[in-house]
Amino acid sequence: MNDGVKTIGVLTSGGDAPGMNAAVRAVVRTAIAYGCQVKGIQKGYSGLLEEEIIDLYAGSVSDIINRGGTFLYTARCEEFRTEEGQRKGAEICRKHGIDSVVVIGGDGSFQGARKLAAHGINTIGVPGTIDLDIACTDYTIGFDTAVNTAMEAIDKVRDTSTSHERCSIIEVMGRNAGYIALWCGIANGAEDILLPELYNYDEEALIDHIIANRRRGKKHHIIINAEGVGHSTSMAKRIEAATGIETRATILGHLQRGGSPTAKDRVMASVMGAYAVDALMGGKSNRVVAYKDGKYVDYDIEEALAMQKELDPFQYSVAKILAR
Amino acid sequence: MNDGVKTIGVLTSGGDAPGMNAAVRAVVRTAIAYGCQVKGIQKGYSGLLEEEIIDLYAGSVSDIINRGGTFLYTARCEEFRTEEGQRKGAEICRKHGIDSVVVIGGDGSFQGARKLAAHGINTIGVPGTIDLDIACTDYTIGFDTAVNTAMEAIDKVRDTSTSHERCSIIEVMGRNAGYIALWCGIANGAEDILLPELYNYDEEALIDHIIANRRRGKKHHIIINAEGVGHSTSMAKRIEAATGIETRATILGHLQRGGSPTAKDRVMASVMGAYAVDALMGGKSNRVVAYKDGKYVDYDIEEALAMQKELDPFQYSVAKILAR
Amino acid sequence: MNDGVKTIGVLTSGGDAPGMNAAVRAVVRTAIAYGCQVKGIQKGYSGLLEEEIIDLYAGSVSDIINRGGTFLYTARCEEFRTEEGQRKGAEICRKHGIDSVVVIGGDGSFQGARKLAAHGINTIGVPGTIDLDIACTDYTIGFDTAVNTAMEAIDKVRDTSTSHERCSIIEVMGRNAGYIALWCGIANGAEDILLPELYNYDEEALIDHIIANRRRGKKHHIIINAEGVGHSTSMAKRIEAATGIETRATILGHLQRGGSPTAKDRVMASVMGAYAVDALMGGKSNRVVAYKDGKYVDYDIEEALAMQKELDPFQYSVAKILAR
Amino acid sequence: MNDGVKTIGVLTSGGDAPGMNAAVRAVVRTAIAYGCQVKGIQKGYSGLLEEEIIDLYAGSVSDIINRGGTFLYTARCEEFRTEEGQRKGAEICRKHGIDSVVVIGGDGSFQGARKLAAHGINTIGVPGTIDLDIACTDYTIGFDTAVNTAMEAIDKVRDTSTSHERCSIIEVMGRNAGYIALWCGIANGAEDILLPELYNYDEEALIDHIIANRRRGKKHHIIINAEGVGHSTSMAKRIEAATGIETRATILGHLQRGGSPTAKDRVMASVMGAYAVDALMGGKSNRVVAYKDGKYVDYDIEEALAMQKELDPFQYSVAKILAR
Repeated sequence: MNDGVKTIGVLTSGGDAPGMNAAVRAVVRTAIAYGCQVKGIQKGYSGLLEEEIIDLYAGSVSDIINRGGTFLYTARCEEFRTEEGQRKGAEICRKHGIDSVVVIGGDGSFQGARKLAAHGINTIGVPGTIDLDIACTDYTIGFDTAVNTAMEAIDKVRDTSTSHERCSIIEVMGRNAGYIALWCGIANGAEDILLPELYNYDEEALIDHIIANRRRGKKHHIIINAEGVGHSTSMAKRIEAATGIETRATILGHLQRGGSPTAKDRVMASVMGAYAVDALMGGKSNRVVAYKDGKYVDYDIEEALAMQKELDPFQYSVAKILAR
Repeated sequence: MNDGVKTIGVLTSGGDAPGMNAAVRAVVRTAIAYGCQVKGIQKGYSGLLEEEIIDLYAGSVSDIINRGGTFLYTARCEEFRTEEGQRKGAEICRKHGIDSVVVIGGDGSFQGARKLAAHGINTIGVPGTIDLDIACTDYTIGFDTAVNTAMEAIDKVRDTSTSHERCSIIEVMGRNAGYIALWCGIANGAEDILLPELYNYDEEALIDHIIANRRRGKKHHIIINAEGVGHSTSMAKRIEAATGIETRATILGHLQRGGSPTAKDRVMASVMGAYAVDALMGGKSNRVVAYKDGKYVDYDIEEALAMQKELDPFQYSVAKILAR
Repeated sequence: MNDGVKTIGVLTSGGDAPGMNAAVRAVVRTAIAYGCQVKGIQKGYSGLLEEEIIDLYAGSVSDIINRGGTFLYTARCEEFRTEEGQRKGAEICRKHGIDSVVVIGGDGSFQGARKLAAHGINTIGVPGTIDLDIACTDYTIGFDTAVNTAMEAIDKVRDTSTSHERCSIIEVMGRNAGYIALWCGIANGAEDILLPELYNYDEEALIDHIIANRRRGKKHHIIINAEGVGHSTSMAKRIEAATGIETRATILGHLQRGGSPTAKDRVMASVMGAYAVDALMGGKSNRVVAYKDGKYVDYDIEEALAMQKELDPFQYSVAKILAR
Repeated sequence: MNDGVKTIGVLTSGGDAPGMNAAVRAVVRTAIAYGCQVKGIQKGYSGLLEEEIIDLYAGSVSDIINRGGTFLYTARCEEFRTEEGQRKGAEICRKHGIDSVVVIGGDGSFQGARKLAAHGINTIGVPGTIDLDIACTDYTIGFDTAVNTAMEAIDKVRDTSTSHERCSIIEVMGRNAGYIALWCGIANGAEDILLPELYNYDEEALIDHIIANRRRGKKHHIIINAEGVGHSTSMAKRIEAATGIETRATILGHLQRGGSPTAKDRVMASVMGAYAVDALMGGKSNRVVAYKDGKYVDYDIEEALAMQKELDPFQYSVAKILAR
């Protein structure tokens, strides 16, 4: 056990993700079980620089495991991208007696954790993003909830799409990653999935597919469009013009970020939060927790940030075969 | 009992609404209990003119009460707005032995029912629209489900809005009626509700309200925007520019039309469907079923279409007082 | 306006019901809008006698409208059934400066409100119970949520019941009232509904019905059993023995009491809470708020308690016809 | 590619599980993409022996990916446990031209698949059970949905449990496996988890824990009880007697088996179904598909049945630490 770890700070940073509260709760209660004190740093690195720091107790995290969002708030922070801001952040940690920090967020947040570590603060990153776009890990907090939220919304769109024999384009989140789109594509039995990674968007082929499906008697045509592939609303207009089939776009937007987390997100975020504190107590720093090949592990942050990740081509080929 | 009623047709018309399947199921099974035959007319008046007519039995409507959309499909139909189309529709009814038709839809659909009645077909309208914008009735099929769907989506937007201390504009459906917006405004504890009926949209006042709330320490500011009040995305940009507070728009769109119906929509749609057949068997025609002042009643279609309806001012004043 | 109303206490009593928090929130914010102070009395009359009384502000009721249960807690209280307890309760109110109390609960809770009024405290009752068994009102807080919760659970039981071609008995709550059972019976398309009010339970007829349905090829047989009609588990054993069809009982139990309230429960509880404060400010006391024939009204508590209520026979006949 | 595979049969067997429909759909559409014919064998091995066999086309499995249960029905079958029954089953396969069978179910169903293989039919097993109790795989179809269903129900019980300051025992499914209980224990933040595998049930210690928690001010005490650990209702009575704290038991029962599958269950069941057909086409037989260490793999059925599985001790220790 690392005697140098006495007070652990915890923050959430970047886009919020359902399950972050479960992770914070696990950090707090595991740290207390080790005899540590815990401080909540609000609004990510921005709140660190503003010293928005509160004491956390076992009871502070009661009744939050089932809540969406992050009760520590989150924000982006330009100042912390500077050497000056990073040094100041580390000093504020020391001023508040914080020797170690658990950072829950995505790649950008881990960059910050790396800098804090370089300035003498122990840091452990925990992957929290609905986009699943962290290369070192097969799981990120919030993805499972976001996919289920999107899937349920798309099930509803499909009801009305079928009733009206419409073509529907549904745009899901994911920034430059197509994981949410690919999962929804399979889970909703979509006719087409437009992905930033694997798909060279070919509108003519898409239109031919829609027309061919309608000739075969299909009552709806659901297209899942990953954020970043194209502008869903104008795509819908062009498709309607080309096919003569009523076509509507729905951009699911921010509702994908919220909601009570799924069991998977509650459980895995809890385990990752506990793992992060165990890692700190075991003397580790500048590491990121990951779930890889069925096991919880940790990587050096720099190595983790250098990794590459690809959509599973088998999963994609399954998606295409099933969309018949 | 009306011996002239031997074969009842049933159709859904206009925008689909969750609970329409429950109503069709009730029409079918109640008619069969009376010894009648039942025919399903697919795709509304359009399918009538195309003779897309199928036989329906008790088993045809098994396992549909919990399904969104309408298994009879729906469509709009220009041709049926003409005298010529209406006459043809009535003839097709007679050709298929259909003496009576139950029409599930909104005001536009009831206009069609009135015309069919004028051409000698018994008709009963059943109010089905998520917009609640049918003057003669306090309930329309689908409104309860749509409001709950929108409310749950807005709860999720609120989670992330709070985490990021954002202002959020959420645009809900309702065409020119603010019922969904008003209900969500209260149910989601929104800070502002923009309604077509009661609200003279004043963006300056809205911006002042946002700034005042932020000064008082409110972590989010939720604005429910009824369809038709304004363009949510550009509104968001102007508000962000004026307040300096990150502001995002979410347009819920077609997901509000789908989904498994709520208990209220399943039960009341079932009762209305049964009531419609009872009315036909009791010799009524050219009537619309309504739920008024706590009772199921029926009105002459023409009278019903001439009625006016207003948002409940008490409900609106409650919404404003609670948004503190 | 009643100048004598300066401080309003609010309590929840009896079984908890989803939407009670929305009602409390509305009481608090409406009272504050009138310039009153508000005190929360925890744990119903029991907490009153224990002086578990807290100050409530507009911010105290933030973020509770979407929560199940009651954040004021609730309890039953024997002592308050005595003249001595009631007098003591009124004195404690006066000691804390509480001149008026809004009581959210069922008939038993209104009895208490009547006694407090008799001892000089202004009281208004608000109907809160999932059972809908308050005679003066067509709506009680929590019923809509409880029915939807039960219905969704029964939809799930039906999936597995169909897969295994089983007979399923599902016992729902309602004490001696069959409203939840009747609503679920229609909403879930149940084959049989056992109600305390209208149904003279005849197991032989039930068994004949199950056998007849199976012969007609029905893949499941769902029986909704209202609490109080009989013991579901032993009923299942007898039915299985008599029919040779695998039969299972599910007792939904307390999950029916919880969960985020539906839109209807959030909105109507909010309006009723506001109405209660309006009534106090208008000089009323010893009244209970009701929703009757489509309007919010209020009744003298004694009169309200003397009213009788019946299941809607038309709704029941519809349920039986549709169960084919 | 295996030219000997021309007609693939597919059946679901044992307890139904959400996602089985997604697996069947994937089997059907993947097989068709290979140019095979597909036959659905209804009601598991029982339906095989009764020759309840239907042709399946791409369109036969439209609109089922989001449905709970199994549209092929399922059953247990004593006759197929006999050598005689197995031989007859294989003969019926041949009679219907079925050279290969995909069996979706649990260990018992795989025993059957092994016997069919021994009689010359190619077989691939796909793990489908909500209990997660198949040793060779980290994932089984239906577990994720069942856990989420149970978790959401327990969230609701918790609402009312807190309002009344009750102790609640919730019994979840799992037969002799504690996976559902352990996941819910963490996901619902339960105070105690009673597991068949790791927990030597000590009621005295449990009672002491309840009393200690109440003294610390905890408003509820949630106990997740795995099926098979004890009788929840009598346990509740003893706990209430010993602690003086109102204690109620809820047995979630069959609702845990139904419901629309989660995204994970839809996606992974789809991939496994496609994998099973790929395996057959690659010349494999007598294998079971598994998800192990983050990859889809397959095992010899006999080897798979001989494997042992344990609850993750780290996960269990996390559960205990977080329950504070």
